[in-house]
Amino acid sequence: MNLTLAELAQFCTSQGIPCEVDGDASASVSAVATLEDAQPGQVSFLSNPKYENQLGATKATAVFVRPDVRPPRKISLLRTADPYAAVTAAMVRLHGYRCHPQWGISADACIAASAVVGPNANIGPNIYIDEDVRIGPSATIYPGVYVARGCRIGRDVTLFPNVVIYEQCMLGDRVTIHAGTVIGEDGLGYAPVGEKWVKIPQIGNAVIGDDVEIGANCTIDRATLGSTIIGSGTKFSNLIAIGHGTRIGEDCMFVAHVGVAGSVQVGRHVVMAGQAGVVGHITIGDNVTVGAKAGVTNSIEPGITVLGQPAVPINDCKRLLAITQRLPQLKNEVKRLRRDLDQLRKQIEGT
Amino acid sequence: MNLTLAELAQFCTSQGIPCEVDGDASASVSAVATLEDAQPGQVSFLSNPKYENQLGATKATAVFVRPDVRPPRKISLLRTADPYAAVTAAMVRLHGYRCHPQWGISADACIAASAVVGPNANIGPNIYIDEDVRIGPSATIYPGVYVARGCRIGRDVTLFPNVVIYEQCMLGDRVTIHAGTVIGEDGLGYAPVGEKWVKIPQIGNAVIGDDVEIGANCTIDRATLGSTIIGSGTKFSNLIAIGHGTRIGEDCMFVAHVGVAGSVQVGRHVVMAGQAGVVGHITIGDNVTVGAKAGVTNSIEPGITVLGQPAVPINDCKRLLAITQRLPQLKNEVKRLRRDLDQLRKQIEGT
Amino acid sequence: MNLTLAELAQFCTSQGIPCEVDGDASASVSAVATLEDAQPGQVSFLSNPKYENQLGATKATAVFVRPDVRPPRKISLLRTADPYAAVTAAMVRLHGYRCHPQWGISADACIAASAVVGPNANIGPNIYIDEDVRIGPSATIYPGVYVARGCRIGRDVTLFPNVVIYEQCMLGDRVTIHAGTVIGEDGLGYAPVGEKWVKIPQIGNAVIGDDVEIGANCTIDRATLGSTIIGSGTKFSNLIAIGHGTRIGEDCMFVAHVGVAGSVQVGRHVVMAGQAGVVGHITIGDNVTVGAKAGVTNSIEPGITVLGQPAVPINDCKRLLAITQRLPQLKNEVKRLRRDLDQLRKQIEGT
Repeated sequence: MNLTLAELAQFCTSQGIPCEVDGDASASVSAVATLEDAQPGQVSFLSNPKYENQLGATKATAVFVRPDVRPPRKISLLRTADPYAAVTAAMVRLHGYRCHPQWGISADACIAASAVVGPNANIGPNIYIDEDVRIGPSATIYPGVYVARGCRIGRDVTLFPNVVIYEQCMLGDRVTIHAGTVIGEDGLGYAPVGEKWVKIPQIGNAVIGDDVEIGANCTIDRATLGSTIIGSGTKFSNLIAIGHGTRIGEDCMFVAHVGVAGSVQVGRHVVMAGQAGVVGHITIGDNVTVGAKAGVTNSIEPGITVLGQPAVPINDCKRLLAITQRLPQLKNEVKRLRRDLDQLRKQIEGT
Repeated sequence: MNLTLAELAQFCTSQGIPCEVDGDASASVSAVATLEDAQPGQVSFLSNPKYENQLGATKATAVFVRPDVRPPRKISLLRTADPYAAVTAAMVRLHGYRCHPQWGISADACIAASAVVGPNANIGPNIYIDEDVRIGPSATIYPGVYVARGCRIGRDVTLFPNVVIYEQCMLGDRVTIHAGTVIGEDGLGYAPVGEKWVKIPQIGNAVIGDDVEIGANCTIDRATLGSTIIGSGTKFSNLIAIGHGTRIGEDCMFVAHVGVAGSVQVGRHVVMAGQAGVVGHITIGDNVTVGAKAGVTNSIEPGITVLGQPAVPINDCKRLLAITQRLPQLKNEVKRLRRDLDQLRKQIEGT
Repeated sequence: MNLTLAELAQFCTSQGIPCEVDGDASASVSAVATLEDAQPGQVSFLSNPKYENQLGATKATAVFVRPDVRPPRKISLLRTADPYAAVTAAMVRLHGYRCHPQWGISADACIAASAVVGPNANIGPNIYIDEDVRIGPSATIYPGVYVARGCRIGRDVTLFPNVVIYEQCMLGDRVTIHAGTVIGEDGLGYAPVGEKWVKIPQIGNAVIGDDVEIGANCTIDRATLGSTIIGSGTKFSNLIAIGHGTRIGEDCMFVAHVGVAGSVQVGRHVVMAGQAGVVGHITIGDNVTVGAKAGVTNSIEPGITVLGQPAVPINDCKRLLAITQRLPQLKNEVKRLRRDLDQLRKQIEGT
């Protein structure tokens, strides 16, 4: 697809991102690229001022920039208050989303007799769909996926290669699960008998809301009883572990290696940064932000940002950190106090 | 299956969990559910006093409770000193463990000519079993599993979809490996030559003891020489990494994201909480507990609980943490000392 | 293969590791084993002096040792300045590297019409290779692998079972990817619109250099625009997450559970220990070492070793740690200062 800069600015504006051409409005672009990689015929963007010096050298035909940017040389600009949103719109317009291979229903898929596959579903080879599964219309299932008995998979769902869904789990509409992720495996549910661990049957399931996207090689435990829940619109990166019976709210975002233990209640629009961990049986309020590597050991009120191990409100954490980093000075001051005090004592006793 | 409360109490008692009906002993139940989710005809439990207020609203036909619990309204109770153990027994009795699809030996499995598959084994489609493998009686192997040459898989083993076992590894009886876990991949074994890394052949294997259960998407390195060992009865959650040549004792329990480096000796009945890490070439005694996110850098004597980075005995860790959190006060006291001392000096020198 | 000790010493010497027989040069060995496990006919090694007492009990026919080692009893020795390098050479010579099953091109592989497979490639069953893929000569691809459209796979590459490569990614020559690893999945790229997350098309790719080895169940995001890059000769352990657009230099080594966020520049020969994490949009210089569990939040100059959360130069970290561990003493000294000061004041005011 080719668009002139005029057409592109108009498209962004139509998407709620007002945008104006400052340069050759008739020049046309067909792709988006970074400032560094862009070639003529491509559009780029400058969002982080840190990279402003790259404006001089880029070969891009045009660049999305903020209204106040003054490039070091003549270049066509697309001025907008939010270059990041604008370039996102441009990427959707010029490139669109991934096109999946069109398998129809592969003859090499194993689909149980009682499974029901919706219209226009796209089922690759070497897939196993067990009894009583329902696959929604227009779902795409890649090779190597296993969907166990009784699962419900919504419409327009995408399961990338080698995803495994254990029995009785439910995925909403437009869910995307990346390669290698496992949904509904047994959690760590054992009753201690002496020093042995006796397995507790895990008879619950996992329920994934609409519009959820889960990265690669994650693991979402099924509940022991009831459901582990991932709320609609929530997005996960890779290698994330969610414990049994935990309920994550809507529109959350979790970064790679986050681990949440079992029976946790997480509110909506909660952000957890990389390698954060949460202990079991606590409640995390709406709009909480958990910093990278934080270890959350207590419930958190809505709207708070926490950091540290154990996690505390970020300002407390930063204050403690600053004091800790000045400990050598504090120690020296204590030494000086001792010296001065001893000196003063001698002075007094000498009088 | 339906059981009256009298039958259920009797069953629990027969399992070593004395239990008495306080209510309608002839009422019958067919399933276990949480207090919140339970419907008439279901039995629930109250183990954590935190949830006692849910006793008033539950629709459960009966609830396992401790002897001293007084519910706010009339409801049939199953009184026992250990409601958690009792409900576990009830779940085993009423629901049982997972039933696997019955594939027999699928015609779509690739089984090498020299592989030997035991009687009643249940081998799904799209499985690859290489030369000289032996699969024990009644083992169940799901689609997408790869078992490399020379492996020994015990009786009643379950390998969930997409498990990969590298060559020459050995799994005992009744081992369960959840989806996507890899056993026996090469560890990080390289000899440094200048700034290059020269690969050392990894000619050892991994040996998994009887009754081990390993969660989803874990990775257990093979040893460079000899064996990486996971002791009998040990249970792992998901996304756990065990380094080459490490030996884990019997009846351990590791939570998600635990990482143990190579050549570590871990005793029996060791518990490691989520995201804990252990450096290589150390020894961890029997019955040690490693707290969440702890970083173990030195050997640990048996029976100790450690926490922190670096990990220290938990009381030391908590004491340091408490002092650290009061650092602002300490700093203020040092400031006051300086002020008071200076004042005193002036006072003296002024006399 | 059998070699006399004379032949083995000569081989090591020829590999640049001078080695001399001290004992029966005509004795022959056929395998390498640990001191503990070795049997007659096997050669072992002593590199870590910690294990020197095992020299007395080993059944090995010969042992690689440093020139100054004096064993407690008569045993054939292979003396060399670097026993670890020598035993590595011996392992390569006596055992060699893994031999793969020879599938040729399996009739049960799905290979798209436009895909090009190089000569002597070894393609197992249940593999899916999409349109426009090129597989290099002598590559080995195990069952369950998925290679999406447009990928380039170099010569002598090994993809272990269930590896998934998303579209348009490029792997150099002699790359090894262990089981379950995913290359080129979408990163966490969303534009926030109110509290919703709008997906940004991820139109970049991932590029893996020559001689890279990646462990099991890792995840390497594709770039949003441009490429995520793993430099030649770099080695990864398991369960590692690399964010979108990050560029890792040559000859790095990352241990299990390392997580690097997006848009990070990592230099060459950087070592990251287990569970280390790196925030996005920073630069890590050549030859940096990042300690276990470190949380890197700022760019690092070349050659520095960092540790801690946030990561600081290792000596600063150790100094702070030492002071922190002596905080109880510091607190007590401050208490004594207060007492002494008050006493002194009374003394003065009493005069």
